[in-house]
Amino acid sequence: MKTVDIVESNRLKMRHGEHIILRLTYISRYNNDNLNGEVTRILEQAQQNNERNGITGALVFNHNYFLQSIEGARPVINGLVRKLVKDERHHSLQVIECREVEQRHWSKWSMKYLIPSEEKKGLALKFSTGSEFNPYLMSTNQITMLIDTLSEL
Amino acid sequence: MKTVDIVESNRLKMRHGEHIILRLTYISRYNNDNLNGEVTRILEQAQQNNERNGITGALVFNHNYFLQSIEGARPVINGLVRKLVKDERHHSLQVIECREVEQRHWSKWSMKYLIPSEEKKGLALKFSTGSEFNPYLMSTNQITMLIDTLSEL
Amino acid sequence: MKTVDIVESNRLKMRHGEHIILRLTYISRYNNDNLNGEVTRILEQAQQNNERNGITGALVFNHNYFLQSIEGARPVINGLVRKLVKDERHHSLQVIECREVEQRHWSKWSMKYLIPSEEKKGLALKFSTGSEFNPYLMSTNQITMLIDTLSEL
Amino acid sequence: MKTVDIVESNRLKMRHGEHIILRLTYISRYNNDNLNGEVTRILEQAQQNNERNGITGALVFNHNYFLQSIEGARPVINGLVRKLVKDERHHSLQVIECREVEQRHWSKWSMKYLIPSEEKKGLALKFSTGSEFNPYLMSTNQITMLIDTLSEL
Amino acid sequence: MKTVDIVESNRLKMRHGEHIILRLTYISRYNNDNLNGEVTRILEQAQQNNERNGITGALVFNHNYFLQSIEGARPVINGLVRKLVKDERHHSLQVIECREVEQRHWSKWSMKYLIPSEEKKGLALKFSTGSEFNPYLMSTNQITMLIDTLSEL
Amino acid sequence: MKTVDIVESNRLKMRHGEHIILRLTYISRYNNDNLNGEVTRILEQAQQNNERNGITGALVFNHNYFLQSIEGARPVINGLVRKLVKDERHHSLQVIECREVEQRHWSKWSMKYLIPSEEKKGLALKFSTGSEFNPYLMSTNQITMLIDTLSEL
Amino acid sequence: MKTVDIVESNRLKMRHGEHIILRLTYISRYNNDNLNGEVTRILEQAQQNNERNGITGALVFNHNYFLQSIEGARPVINGLVRKLVKDERHHSLQVIECREVEQRHWSKWSMKYLIPSEEKKGLALKFSTGSEFNPYLMSTNQITMLIDTLSEL
Amino acid sequence: MKTVDIVESNRLKMRHGEHIILRLTYISRYNNDNLNGEVTRILEQAQQNNERNGITGALVFNHNYFLQSIEGARPVINGLVRKLVKDERHHSLQVIECREVEQRHWSKWSMKYLIPSEEKKGLALKFSTGSEFNPYLMSTNQITMLIDTLSEL
Amino acid sequence: MKTVDIVESNRLKMRHGEHIILRLTYISRYNNDNLNGEVTRILEQAQQNNERNGITGALVFNHNYFLQSIEGARPVINGLVRKLVKDERHHSLQVIECREVEQRHWSKWSMKYLIPSEEKKGLALKFSTGSEFNPYLMSTNQITMLIDTLSEL
Amino acid sequence: MKTVDIVESNRLKMRHGEHIILRLTYISRYNNDNLNGEVTRILEQAQQNNERNGITGALVFNHNYFLQSIEGARPVINGLVRKLVKDERHHSLQVIECREVEQRHWSKWSMKYLIPSEEKKGLALKFSTGSEFNPYLMSTNQITMLIDTLSEL
Repeated sequence: MKTVDIVESNRLKMRHGEHIILRLTYISRYNNDNLNGEVTRILEQAQQNNERNGITGALVFNHNYFLQSIEGARPVINGLVRKLVKDERHHSLQVIECREVEQRHWSKWSMKYLIPSEEKKGLALKFSTGSEFNPYLMSTNQITMLIDTLSEL
Repeated sequence: MKTVDIVESNRLKMRHGEHIILRLTYISRYNNDNLNGEVTRILEQAQQNNERNGITGALVFNHNYFLQSIEGARPVINGLVRKLVKDERHHSLQVIECREVEQRHWSKWSMKYLIPSEEKKGLALKFSTGSEFNPYLMSTNQITMLIDTLSEL
Repeated sequence: MKTVDIVESNRLKMRHGEHIILRLTYISRYNNDNLNGEVTRILEQAQQNNERNGITGALVFNHNYFLQSIEGARPVINGLVRKLVKDERHHSLQVIECREVEQRHWSKWSMKYLIPSEEKKGLALKFSTGSEFNPYLMSTNQITMLIDTLSEL
Repeated sequence: MKTVDIVESNRLKMRHGEHIILRLTYISRYNNDNLNGEVTRILEQAQQNNERNGITGALVFNHNYFLQSIEGARPVINGLVRKLVKDERHHSLQVIECREVEQRHWSKWSMKYLIPSEEKKGLALKFSTGSEFNPYLMSTNQITMLIDTLSEL
Repeated sequence: MKTVDIVESNRLKMRHGEHIILRLTYISRYNNDNLNGEVTRILEQAQQNNERNGITGALVFNHNYFLQSIEGARPVINGLVRKLVKDERHHSLQVIECREVEQRHWSKWSMKYLIPSEEKKGLALKFSTGSEFNPYLMSTNQITMLIDTLSEL
Repeated sequence: MKTVDIVESNRLKMRHGEHIILRLTYISRYNNDNLNGEVTRILEQAQQNNERNGITGALVFNHNYFLQSIEGARPVINGLVRKLVKDERHHSLQVIECREVEQRHWSKWSMKYLIPSEEKKGLALKFSTGSEFNPYLMSTNQITMLIDTLSEL
Repeated sequence: MKTVDIVESNRLKMRHGEHIILRLTYISRYNNDNLNGEVTRILEQAQQNNERNGITGALVFNHNYFLQSIEGARPVINGLVRKLVKDERHHSLQVIECREVEQRHWSKWSMKYLIPSEEKKGLALKFSTGSEFNPYLMSTNQITMLIDTLSEL
Repeated sequence: MKTVDIVESNRLKMRHGEHIILRLTYISRYNNDNLNGEVTRILEQAQQNNERNGITGALVFNHNYFLQSIEGARPVINGLVRKLVKDERHHSLQVIECREVEQRHWSKWSMKYLIPSEEKKGLALKFSTGSEFNPYLMSTNQITMLIDTLSEL
Repeated sequence: MKTVDIVESNRLKMRHGEHIILRLTYISRYNNDNLNGEVTRILEQAQQNNERNGITGALVFNHNYFLQSIEGARPVINGLVRKLVKDERHHSLQVIECREVEQRHWSKWSMKYLIPSEEKKGLALKFSTGSEFNPYLMSTNQITMLIDTLSEL
Repeated sequence: MKTVDIVESNRLKMRHGEHIILRLTYISRYNNDNLNGEVTRILEQAQQNNERNGITGALVFNHNYFLQSIEGARPVINGLVRKLVKDERHHSLQVIECREVEQRHWSKWSMKYLIPSEEKKGLALKFSTGSEFNPYLMSTNQITMLIDTLSEL
C-alpha cells in the first residue's frame, strides 16, 4: 500500500463514526491574569468553529472555571478533544463524561452561555459541599444537574 | 498570589476528583509497519505505569486496531488521555465513552489482554455489519458488548 | 389442482393477514431535475390510491429526499413495497422499519404533508450529526423522533 | 453535476447507513411443481451471496412456504429486498417485520436451516389457530416465537 | 336426594359466584330487513331487564353490527349468554372477551348507546385495516380501544 | 342480495377472526345419576371433534364438576359455546373467562385429563375457603391457578 | 413473681406496640328497630372516646349497615376490637382488613361521617354486583375503593 | 319481618363472604402457671375445630407467647376472632394483620407447629432489637418474616 | 514519622471525604427550665457557624423537642456530631438517619425554622399514634415525612 | 414535676425507639504505636458489651483503619455513638451511614471479624481509586459493597 493510500484510508477511517452523536462534558481552569478580552476572543472563535463543524453545546464560566457540554459527530468531538488538550490558554482540563446520545440537548445553540449571576451562585451549594463553586470536587451527576438547573433558570 | 503558590494550588486542583473512578473506552490504529516488538514494548511500559497509577483495564487488539477500556482516578485517567493524544506510535484515536463508575470492572488486571483467536473472530460479526472487525463503525453499546463477550470467553 | 384454482388460492393467500396493521417507514431520493410538477403529480396519485386502499400516513420531503411513514393492511403495504421498488421516479429506496401496530398513528390523514420550513430545518441538527438533513445516516429512532417532532409543530 | 458524479454520489448514499444492522423477517410461497433440486440450488446460491455480503439468518421451510429472518447492513438488506421482490421462483412475498438491532441473533450462521420434522410440526398449533402451518395468518409475535422455538429445539 | 332438592340445590349453585363482577364483550349481526322498530323494541326490553338484574353496559351499533360490553354478577351474565345464543333476531354472535373485574366501567348506565355519527366513523380506520367498520376482523384490544374512544367523544 | 349470497356472506363473516386464538374457561355440573359410561362417551366424542377443529385444552373433573380450559380459533370456540349451552348432559354452565392469547397453553393435547387423585384433593383447599371442591365459589385467578397446579403435578 | 407484678408487667406488655399505627376496616349490622336516637348516641360516645385515645377514622352507614375504617396505636385498636365484639347494639361484625400503615388516612377527623345521599347510592353498583348496598358480599379492595370514592365526593 | 326471619336472614348474612379467604395474624400471652397439659389440650381442640371449619395455619409458641397465622373463610375467621377475644386461657391478645388472600400459605396443615429450638432462637435477634423474643415490639413485616423463616428451616 | 507529620497527616485525613454531602437527622430534648432566651442564643450561634461551614438545614422545635435535618461535607457533619454529643444544653440526643446525598434539600437556608403553629399541630397525629408530638416514638420515614410536610405548608 | 420524675421520665424517653433497628457504619483510625494487645483488648470488651446490649455487627480492620457496621436498638446504637466519640484510643471517627432496617444483616455475630488477607487486599482497588485501602475517600455505596464482598469471601 502506498503512503498516499494510507493517508487517504486513514482520512476515511477518521470519518467513520460520523453518524454517531457524542456528548462531552469537561471542566478546565484559566488564569485570572488573562484579560477578559482574551476569553471573549476564545469564545468567539469557538462559536464560529462550532457552527462550521455541526457542534452544539453550553458553557458555564465564572471568573475561574470553564464547565462545558458539547455535542457533535464522534470524530468531530474527538478532534476537539485533541485541540483542547493542546490549548495553552486554559489548563487542568478534566474530561468528566463522554457518551453517545440519540438526540442533542443543545440543538438550538452553537454555544449557549450560562453565566451564573450573584443570586444563581447559591446553586453551587445545592450540588456540592462548599459554597464556592469548585467543579473539580463534584461528581458527574452533580455537574450534569448543575448545568441543567442553570439552563432552566 | 505568587507563582509558586499558583503552581502548588494547581497541583492540588489537579488532584481534586481523585476519589472518583472514571472508566474510559477508546479505539486507535497502528501501522502494520511497526514491528511486533514495538507493540510489545508499548504494552509493557503501559502495564508498569498502570500499576504505579492505580489503573486497571482490558485491551483488545488485532493486527490493525487497539480497543481499550481503562479505569482509574479521574485526574489519572485524564493525565493518560493527554499522553494518548500526543503518542505518535498510534493514530486515529477516538474516545468512545468516558463515565464515572462505583466499582471497577477489571480490578484484577492492571491490563487484561484480549486477543481474538481465529474462532473468536466471528464475534465481530455479532455486533457489526461487516465480518471484518472495524470498531470505528460500531456504537458504544456494540463495543462494550464485544469487550464483555470476549472477556467471558 | 388447476391453474385457475391456484390463482384463486394465491389471491386468497395474499388476502390473508389483511386484519394486521403494518407500519412501514422508508426513505428515498429523487433528482432535482424532476420538475416540481411531477412530484406533485406523484403525490396526488398516491393520495387517491391510499384512500382506496385504506392506507394512511405522513410524508416529509425537502428538495432532495422523501421520508415516509405509511400504515395499512399487511398485504396492502406489501403491495405498495413492490410498487415502490419498481418506481423509477425515485431511487436509493431504503426501508427503515416495518412493524405491526394495534392502532394507526395517522388515521386522520390519507397522507399528511410535513414540509420543513426554514426555521424547522434546525430539527435536522437535533437528531443527527450534520446540519444538512441526510436521513441515510440516521438511526430508526432518530428518524421516528424527527417525524413525530415535525408532526407536532 | 455530471452523470458520473451523480452515479458515484448515489453509490455513496447507498452505502450510507452501512453501520446499522437491520433484521428483516418475511414469508413467501413456492409452487410444489418446482423440483426440489431447484430449491436446493436457490438456497446454495443465497448462502454464497450471504457470506460475501455479511448477511446472517435462519430459514424455515416446509413443502409450501419460506419463512426467513435475515440480518445485515441496512443498505445490504434493502438490496436483498429488491431482489426478493423481483425473484419469480417464489411469490406472495410478505414482509412481516423489519427493525434495527444492536446485535445479530444468527451471527454464527450465514443461513441456519430449520426444517420442521414430523414431531416438530405440532409447533404450528402452538402459535396459530390451525394445525396446518400457514404463516400468512400469523402475527409478527407469533412468527418470531415460532422461529425462536424451532431454533432452540 | 329428591328431585326437588336437586332443583333447589342447583338453584343455589347457580347463585354461587354472584359476588363476582364479570365483563362480557361480544359482537353480532342483524339483517337490514329488520325494521328499525324491531331493533328499538329489542333495546327497550333489554334495558328493562338490565335494570332488574343489576346489569350495566354500553352498546355500539351501526346499520349492520352490534358491539356490546356488559357487566354484572357472574351467574347473571351467564344467564344472558344463554339467551343471546338462542335469540334469533341477530346471528353470527361472537364472544370477544369475558373477564372478572373489581369495578364496573359503565356503572352509571343500564345501557349507554354509542351510535357513531358520520364524523366518528373515521375511528373505525384508527383500529382496523379497513375504513368500513367490521368488528369480526378486529382483535380484543382494538375492539376495547374503539369502545373506550367512542365513549369519551 | 339473494338469500344464497347472504348465507354465503354470513358463512364468510363467521370465518372472520379465524386467525385469533381464544382461550375459554368454564365450569359445569353433571348428575351423579349419569352412568360413568356416558361421561366417557361424551369425552371421546369431544376429543375427536377437537382434533378436527384445531381445539386444544385441559379438563378437570371429579364426581360432580367439569372445569375446562379450551383454546382455538375465535369462531370455532364460539361455535363450541353454542353447543355447550344447548347440551343437556350437563347443566349450570358458567363461563369463567374468555380471552385472546398469542400462544396456546395446551398445544400438545387435544384434551389433557386432570383427574385429582385423593392426595391431590388437598389442592382445593389451597385456592378456596372450603375443603370440598366447589368451583362455583372460586374467582377466575383461583380457578386458573388450580388448573396450572394440577397440570404441573 | 407477685400478682401485682404480673398485672403491671401485662399492662406494660399491652402498651408495647403503641408506636405502630394500625388501620382496621370492619362492617357490621344494626336492627332497624333501633331508634335513630340510639345510633346517634352510639356515635357521639364513640367520637369522644376516639379523641381521648388518638383514634381517627371514617364511618359509612345507611339504614342497615355500618362500614368503618379506624386508625390508631396497635394496642388501642385492639382494645376497640374487644369492645366491638362484645357490643350488643350491633351484630354480624366482620373484620375486613387490619394492617400497619406509616401515615394515617383520616388524621383530620376523629370520625368522618360518610352518609350516602340518594344520588351517591349508585356507587354501590360500581363496586358490587347488586344495586342494593351489601358490604358482606364485597371484597377488601371493593370496600376500600368505595370508602375512598365516597370520601372524595 | 318476624324474629325467626331476622335470625335466618342474619345467619345468611353471616355466611356471606364465605368465598373470601382471610389471613389473620395475632399474638397473645399465656401464664407460665398453666400446666403444659392445658396448652396441649387447647391446641388439640383447636386443631379439631380447624379441620371441621376449613381453617389452616401455623403456630409459633415458646414458654410465654403464642404467635399464630390462620387462614379461612372470612366469616369463619371472624367467628374465631370472637372466640379468641373471650378465651380466658390466654390474654393480651393483639391482632397484627388481617388481609384477603387469593391462595392459602398453609394449605397442607390444619395447624403447623413451629417451636423454636435453642439454636433457632437466634432468629428472634434477626428481626427485633432484643435477643429475647417479644413479638409485642415487632412490626407486621418482622413478624411475617420470622414466621416464614421458621417455617422454612 | 514525627508527631507534627502525624498531626498534619491526620488533619488531611479528616479533610478526606469533604466532597461527599451527608444529610443527618437527629432529635433531642431541652428542659423547659431553659429560658427562651437561651434557645434563641443557641440557634443564632448555630446559624453563624453553619454559614461558615457550608452547612444547610431545617429545624423543627416545639416547647420540648428539637428535630433537625442538616446537610454538609461528611467531615463537617461529623465534627458537628461530636459537638452535639458533648453539648449539655440539650440531652437525649438520638441520631435518626445519616446518609449520603447527591444534592441538598435545604440549599437555600443555612437553617430553616419550622415552628408548628397550633393548627399545624394536627400533623403530629398524621405520622404517629399519639396526638402529642413525640419524635422518639416515630420511625425514620415518619420523621422525614413530617419535616417535608411542615416545610411545604 | 420533681427532679426525680424528670430523670425517670428522661430515662423512659431514652428507651423510646427501642423497637427500631438502626444500622450504623463508621470508619476510624488508630495509631500504629498502639500495641496489638491493646486493639485485642478493645475488641474483647466491645464484643462482651455487644452481647449484653443486643448489638450485632462486622468489623474490618487492617493495620491503620477500623471500618465497622453495627446494628441494634436505636437508643442503644446512639449510646454507642456517644462512647465512640469520646473514646481516645482511636481518632478521626467518621459516621458514614446510619439507617433504620427491618432485619439485621449480621444477626449471627455479636461481632464478625473481617481481616483482609494479602490476596483479599485487591478488593480495595475494586471499590476505590487507590490500591492502598483508604476508606476516608470512599463513598457510602463503595464502603457497603466492600464489607459485603469481604463477608462473602
